[in-house]
Amino acid sequence: MGTGSVGAVETRYITLPSPLPLEGGGVLAEVVLAHETYGRLNNERSNAIFVCHALSGDAHAAGLHPGATRPGWWDGLIGPGKALDTDQFFVICSNVIGGCRGSTGPGSTDPETGRPYGARFPVITVRDMVSAQKRLVEALGIDRLYAVVGGSMGGMQALQWAIAYPDALQRAVVIAATGTSSPQQIAFNEIGRRAIMTDPAWNGGDYYGGPGPEGGLGLARMVGHVTYLSDESMHEKFGRRLQERDEVGFDFATDFAVESYLHHQGKVFSRRFDANSYLYITKALDYFDLSADGSLAEGLREVAAKVLVVAVSSDWLYPPYQSQALVEALAANEVDVEYCEIASKHGHDGFLLENGQLNYLVGRFLSRVEVRDVMTALVPTLDPGAVLVEAARVMIEHGVNHLPVLDPDGALAGIVTSWDIAKAVACGRSSLAEIMTRGVVTVGPDETVQAAAARMESHAISALPVVDSENRLVGIISSEALSRLVGRCR
Amino acid sequence: MGTGSVGAVETRYITLPSPLPLEGGGVLAEVVLAHETYGRLNNERSNAIFVCHALSGDAHAAGLHPGATRPGWWDGLIGPGKALDTDQFFVICSNVIGGCRGSTGPGSTDPETGRPYGARFPVITVRDMVSAQKRLVEALGIDRLYAVVGGSMGGMQALQWAIAYPDALQRAVVIAATGTSSPQQIAFNEIGRRAIMTDPAWNGGDYYGGPGPEGGLGLARMVGHVTYLSDESMHEKFGRRLQERDEVGFDFATDFAVESYLHHQGKVFSRRFDANSYLYITKALDYFDLSADGSLAEGLREVAAKVLVVAVSSDWLYPPYQSQALVEALAANEVDVEYCEIASKHGHDGFLLENGQLNYLVGRFLSRVEVRDVMTALVPTLDPGAVLVEAARVMIEHGVNHLPVLDPDGALAGIVTSWDIAKAVACGRSSLAEIMTRGVVTVGPDETVQAAAARMESHAISALPVVDSENRLVGIISSEALSRLVGRCR
Repeated sequence: MGTGSVGAVETRYITLPSPLPLEGGGVLAEVVLAHETYGRLNNERSNAIFVCHALSGDAHAAGLHPGATRPGWWDGLIGPGKALDTDQFFVICSNVIGGCRGSTGPGSTDPETGRPYGARFPVITVRDMVSAQKRLVEALGIDRLYAVVGGSMGGMQALQWAIAYPDALQRAVVIAATGTSSPQQIAFNEIGRRAIMTDPAWNGGDYYGGPGPEGGLGLARMVGHVTYLSDESMHEKFGRRLQERDEVGFDFATDFAVESYLHHQGKVFSRRFDANSYLYITKALDYFDLSADGSLAEGLREVAAKVLVVAVSSDWLYPPYQSQALVEALAANEVDVEYCEIASKHGHDGFLLENGQLNYLVGRFLSRVEVRDVMTALVPTLDPGAVLVEAARVMIEHGVNHLPVLDPDGALAGIVTSWDIAKAVACGRSSLAEIMTRGVVTVGPDETVQAAAARMESHAISALPVVDSENRLVGIISSEALSRLVGRCR
Repeated sequence: MGTGSVGAVETRYITLPSPLPLEGGGVLAEVVLAHETYGRLNNERSNAIFVCHALSGDAHAAGLHPGATRPGWWDGLIGPGKALDTDQFFVICSNVIGGCRGSTGPGSTDPETGRPYGARFPVITVRDMVSAQKRLVEALGIDRLYAVVGGSMGGMQALQWAIAYPDALQRAVVIAATGTSSPQQIAFNEIGRRAIMTDPAWNGGDYYGGPGPEGGLGLARMVGHVTYLSDESMHEKFGRRLQERDEVGFDFATDFAVESYLHHQGKVFSRRFDANSYLYITKALDYFDLSADGSLAEGLREVAAKVLVVAVSSDWLYPPYQSQALVEALAANEVDVEYCEIASKHGHDGFLLENGQLNYLVGRFLSRVEVRDVMTALVPTLDPGAVLVEAARVMIEHGVNHLPVLDPDGALAGIVTSWDIAKAVACGRSSLAEIMTRGVVTVGPDETVQAAAARMESHAISALPVVDSENRLVGIISSEALSRLVGRCR
């Protein structure tokens, strides 16, 4: 798969047209969403993919900001020829509300007081994050997304999209996530929050303009970081290597490389991230529980999208069993769901690192175009008693070359084309029954477009009636519709 | 297995007779060790078992302190009829140096300054802890322990005993431990230390007399506590249950029971434990690495004790693979090692909770008495050319009833008893060859005493020569020696 870049990009900011009602009650008066887009929205506005970021991510998922050398956080998956192929798809990513990378969060100015919200910011949920995203998507003029894709907290948002707005997305990709935050996940989040809130510099959340609780936030990040790695990857990455020493120091200065690494990660993070956002986003994670009446299947009942669930073998923070529980619940609801556990030693971080496997899996899932996705559903039809001139008139009137002929029970009896009309005229026949083709080659709505294209080619025909399992017509697929997809087929 | 209690116990304090040299250089001038003992030391001083505690343990391993309702930390395994059977064994447990439960540590008075050591206490290692324990054992008049037993950091100490003092213990039991601290273990330890040292109340380690860094220590304990549980046990123990609420609060007060539990554990711990001890003991854990030249087998080369290694199936902090690496290294050195992974959902805490499985495994291992353990190794012998009177003289002189007769190559030719002498005298025979019993029933040194006892009983004899695989005499085992063991056989 290609490794093209989307090139130079910039973050844009949009103010939602109205206040956002929140799951916990009340509204968020003024909501700004930082967002980026890559690729082009097609004329049908049908090729948009929304990418959801994890705890510490942001709107900058791909490409390069002016002057930067480090690309967006999922550049490995987004770009020409990659799984989220910007030659085909229009990719949108936005910073979650509650965040600190341009979207409205606790560091934003409270319009009521003119000062930063701080701890007065309302507690938000994953549902609230997605509700804001839905408004952004609408503001971009898109009614229905082709897909929502995300890893970790991003995967939870993708699931929330599929539940809250089942008609607004065709597919969902859920990587290294869960349907219900576990007590262990809550415990690690609470430890992080505790580290921040017991740092005197947190000051009840009012530290803007000052240095802020960098120690506490750094410590929270150190805890988080260990949970994102695996025991094995830590053995490989650090082992018991000493940091700039030949022998242990018998003191409390840094001895081991792993300690130095975590200190560094904590320090860097505490400079780029807002401690209050860490509190609000981890709380949203803790509240995340899609089960209803104790049943995940019940909570996922509304899902209509096709879903790809991916787990990382060595992920102990969001272990594969949690993904498998999602798959079982979706399958119980007869959702079209695919599951794959990628083999990786990287732990939870695998969703950001295993680009090879993810490009293959996600790319294949997103490009698996089915006949139902491109067929024309509302087609004019004839009944077997129609006469030749009637058939010709319907063709001209609707501008179609293929007219299915249906029995009274809706079953496909045959097909008439303009070529048949021409032959009938040449031979002086006028009854439809005499000229229509019977035993027509058909295709099912669930078959892939590749299968449809191959059938057309082998029979030298330019359209196929699409029939269900009882031979009832559900649409028609033409070579023209398929040819428009060529760029999307690999 | 029984569930008897050792009853009322008290902690005693001993001052080591001389300063303790430390692995990191220098000496610890005055070393007090808090310790408790249970059961009675036998006359041979051969039935002592040393128990080593984990990070936050102490000398109070079993029984009840006056007025207390909660017994010692390993009361489930120590007592009459339990694995560490105080009817048979003399059990010793002492608080590690660097600790805060009565043994010399950072909270002790520095004899040089008259003030608490604080951060001026020298960095100590597991080897130093064990070196202090060895002196305590000597002060109690014991040259050779029957066993050293411990879980987690206690298991590491048991290994260190077996390496540093191979002649001073017969057996070692190593539960839920490792031969080498892993980078993940170091990372969690460093997070705990960071929490303490960034708490302003830590004050560079000088907080004695004041409240101390209770917030930081509580946070460190919260992190530790999560690593001691398993994902599964947390699901069972807490799930997503709310704490004294019917609905989530949409605020940052405690929502979930798991959060409340961890806060409580942190708070309780911060009141009973010294933050500086937490720093010193976790540092000792980080430094623990028994491998030499990159090889664990090389580092374990001195081990002569029989070893039982036990892992807990759901322990992700000290995962079973680390125990297995120990077993492989010991086996490579031809150490007599047994391994068992106990099935438990309790995670690392399993070593404190799985009393049923541990009593069975540890009890069986400790009570597996072999012939070599109770045989008499230095026995008078005769050569086949000896005459009757000579045999009688040796018997009387050494006060023994059974005299092995050895060929010139050391192989057992037969045996002569006082009964044989009496018969010869009665029948007027004087040649040893005429009277000695040939085709003697023997036993191997590795056979159990149960096997030896059964053989004596079935042949109606009161002693068995102990021979190696080449029929060379290595000792003799008598019914008297076995009868002394009766209390120990189950």
